[in-house]
Amino acid sequence: MATTTWTRRHILSLADFVSEEYNTVLQTAASFQEVLSRRLKKVPSLQGQLVANLFFEPSTRTRSSFELAAKRLSADTLNFAPGTSSLTKGETILDTAKTYLAMGCDMMVIRHKQAGVPQAIADEMDRLDSRVGILNAGDGQHEHPSQGLLDLFTICSLLDPDRPHLELLEGKKIAIVGDILHSRVARSNIWSLTATGAEVHLAGPPTLVPQLFADFGTGRAGRLFLHWTIEPALQDADFVMTLRLQKERMDQNLLPSLREYHQRFGITRERLKLCKPNVKVLHPGPVNRGVEISSDLMDDPEFSLISQQVTSGVAVRMALLYLMGGGKA
Amino acid sequence: MATTTWTRRHILSLADFVSEEYNTVLQTAASFQEVLSRRLKKVPSLQGQLVANLFFEPSTRTRSSFELAAKRLSADTLNFAPGTSSLTKGETILDTAKTYLAMGCDMMVIRHKQAGVPQAIADEMDRLDSRVGILNAGDGQHEHPSQGLLDLFTICSLLDPDRPHLELLEGKKIAIVGDILHSRVARSNIWSLTATGAEVHLAGPPTLVPQLFADFGTGRAGRLFLHWTIEPALQDADFVMTLRLQKERMDQNLLPSLREYHQRFGITRERLKLCKPNVKVLHPGPVNRGVEISSDLMDDPEFSLISQQVTSGVAVRMALLYLMGGGKA
Amino acid sequence: MATTTWTRRHILSLADFVSEEYNTVLQTAASFQEVLSRRLKKVPSLQGQLVANLFFEPSTRTRSSFELAAKRLSADTLNFAPGTSSLTKGETILDTAKTYLAMGCDMMVIRHKQAGVPQAIADEMDRLDSRVGILNAGDGQHEHPSQGLLDLFTICSLLDPDRPHLELLEGKKIAIVGDILHSRVARSNIWSLTATGAEVHLAGPPTLVPQLFADFGTGRAGRLFLHWTIEPALQDADFVMTLRLQKERMDQNLLPSLREYHQRFGITRERLKLCKPNVKVLHPGPVNRGVEISSDLMDDPEFSLISQQVTSGVAVRMALLYLMGGGKA
Repeated sequence: MATTTWTRRHILSLADFVSEEYNTVLQTAASFQEVLSRRLKKVPSLQGQLVANLFFEPSTRTRSSFELAAKRLSADTLNFAPGTSSLTKGETILDTAKTYLAMGCDMMVIRHKQAGVPQAIADEMDRLDSRVGILNAGDGQHEHPSQGLLDLFTICSLLDPDRPHLELLEGKKIAIVGDILHSRVARSNIWSLTATGAEVHLAGPPTLVPQLFADFGTGRAGRLFLHWTIEPALQDADFVMTLRLQKERMDQNLLPSLREYHQRFGITRERLKLCKPNVKVLHPGPVNRGVEISSDLMDDPEFSLISQQVTSGVAVRMALLYLMGGGKA
Repeated sequence: MATTTWTRRHILSLADFVSEEYNTVLQTAASFQEVLSRRLKKVPSLQGQLVANLFFEPSTRTRSSFELAAKRLSADTLNFAPGTSSLTKGETILDTAKTYLAMGCDMMVIRHKQAGVPQAIADEMDRLDSRVGILNAGDGQHEHPSQGLLDLFTICSLLDPDRPHLELLEGKKIAIVGDILHSRVARSNIWSLTATGAEVHLAGPPTLVPQLFADFGTGRAGRLFLHWTIEPALQDADFVMTLRLQKERMDQNLLPSLREYHQRFGITRERLKLCKPNVKVLHPGPVNRGVEISSDLMDDPEFSLISQQVTSGVAVRMALLYLMGGGKA
Repeated sequence: MATTTWTRRHILSLADFVSEEYNTVLQTAASFQEVLSRRLKKVPSLQGQLVANLFFEPSTRTRSSFELAAKRLSADTLNFAPGTSSLTKGETILDTAKTYLAMGCDMMVIRHKQAGVPQAIADEMDRLDSRVGILNAGDGQHEHPSQGLLDLFTICSLLDPDRPHLELLEGKKIAIVGDILHSRVARSNIWSLTATGAEVHLAGPPTLVPQLFADFGTGRAGRLFLHWTIEPALQDADFVMTLRLQKERMDQNLLPSLREYHQRFGITRERLKLCKPNVKVLHPGPVNRGVEISSDLMDDPEFSLISQQVTSGVAVRMALLYLMGGGKA
């Protein structure tokens, strides 16, 4: 395990992550990736610690990934089921979090449809002088830092499986395609990728890629570009990230039909010819086959990193919980 | 751990609890409270035993507390989800319980909106000569014994953290304020507190504090008083327990507006001046802030024991499962 | 534990099970039945392995049984909750399964209301060269192999508790009564029981016992008979299996009233007089008391094997997961 000292109690956003932190996460995740390749895929690191998954917005996929990460670190877990909760009884979210604190939680993994809820809980936990760590598992359209970190780990592990590190991305071109505006995944990825020195090219319809995103890259090691057509983003790209399209955007008149979206921004074998020959495609899942990406491409291991992202997710979340939990292996 | 012999197989009600039993629970819970202050918060006491949480009425808070208590004793747990259960397929509750018995459950923690269901299941388990223990986690308006015991433990631990015991409450005055009529928490607390020799003062609107409650105290060590205004209950009180107000009581015309309820029976800093200087406030949660209790008072650690109650809940439930499970540490 | 080599990666159907496989399951389950009679009911066989319960169709009973079996083998478990899943987000079932594969699942237990889904997932897992094992926990009206195996184990264990084996059923007469047409339990039982050399007699209303079922027995060691009245099926029967009646069959005009169904096909003390003196009754649960079986008979341990079936379920599912998981004890 990494010997670097980790000082961040909460993981809420990648906006202020520094290189040393990215590299500590990448190296720690690489160690756990190795653990996950063994027959006995568990370590006792967090034995006796308690991780609560407070998913105010339901998500089987992300919740399962965190639950599994906690269990493989030998932590105990509690899952909060919003449908049957005290929230329906009028309790505030902060009071719910304080209840889990009082039960003895060491870490809380929080997802909420409103941006800022994990931060508000973290502030309250600090105000109470608790030592609980809060991990943002997706808050509204704000951030989804563990997704950004697992995407980074997936890419860096491909470039150097033994020693994934940030500097591998210097000079790489990465396209992020789709509904940037509403995507917390895009925001977290923009922070991490521009921190690496990569060029990040955003592409999507103008309604979903507003000009203001250009500011995100200001003062970062990498550079950020916006495109309202897909071709310049894909041209010579090393990696293409395509985002999940929320179908309700159509009802909001932000999108034409799914068919037209696919024709203009869908990732296909043909379009990938614009990219570097070894280009790889990422998608945070779940995928609308034939919308964001053509079905055959999604299943082609030569191009698709989608299943590696899921696998990386467990290793990266183990790394985050481990580092937040004191990192005593 | 306590060496006292525990003979009660089921914990269904505090009506017939005797002093030795209260003290055994308090002492055992104190031992587990110490375990919970360690870094490794687990003991192997119930390893290989199976605790089923059959919550026919949903409750994240209480279910989480029991699930955590079981896990920290190293038991395996099964959670019964009413929405997706065989009950919707026409199976009787007793048949559901017998299914969990046949699966090899050692203990069942039961919550049901109808009074008497845990007792009925316990009777059936005994009739079948099973050795399964049933723990009532709240049945209708009947009882919620683990809540009564955790409230007792919270109070006694404050008075003597090293050796919480029943006799500490002799001569203390305790007010229970609010909807006594519909509260299983109130009933369990009345049994435990009058067993200690404390004076218990009930206060609430006449529709919610009927005269018949006076009979509960008959023949007990302590005394029970009823009030339809809050002042005489608070006067010189050592502890104030305020109960959760079910908002549906208003639809039943048992209550004026929430605002008026708060004005007449809400616990505020001002009202606490009637009490002893070191008075403490308890609430079983979840709290309607600004209704049962003013928001600032709830968050003031000088007065509020609410988060200690949640913490005590885990230790007390560990004690109950441990004692029911044979107490072999 | 059994030393026989187990070569079947997936357990999807009993149609092609061979005698050696049945006997390996029976013997392995008998070993685990013994484990379950100990105070410490766990073995470390699957430590560090991950079992995902993907119940696209909800079922507390069967899911709890599998979850418990996995936990008692020391596996980690993940439960998939269909209501809150990515399926509502448009993801395909195969993509959901591939996500759990990528997370590192070793085995997946699948229930789905459509026949063939577990097979389709197994095919995909094999195509991907994964080593994941798929266990069908009930697919539409197709099969429910673990139920068939636990029924077989329940019967054989009664006949020889120390060494349950297939040959014990030679020459026995077994009646299966009720809605054969829609029952996956019936189909799995027909395969297993006709493999043993038993005579299997199906009985039910003609709408629910179509003639085509006669073909199931073709070429099997045992023989299969169809009856549209109950008496010839019960005559001299050694075992009577009655099936759960889905009440929605009445809306489909496949059934008269429940009362009339009970009068014609309900199992009662009176009717059992037609059977062998030591006849035993099985039901897969949950039971509609007074419909498929009279209430008093269901509770009579002299006749009813219903609770033994539930107990056997855990042992048999432990055996299946253990054998699929490599059988390294």
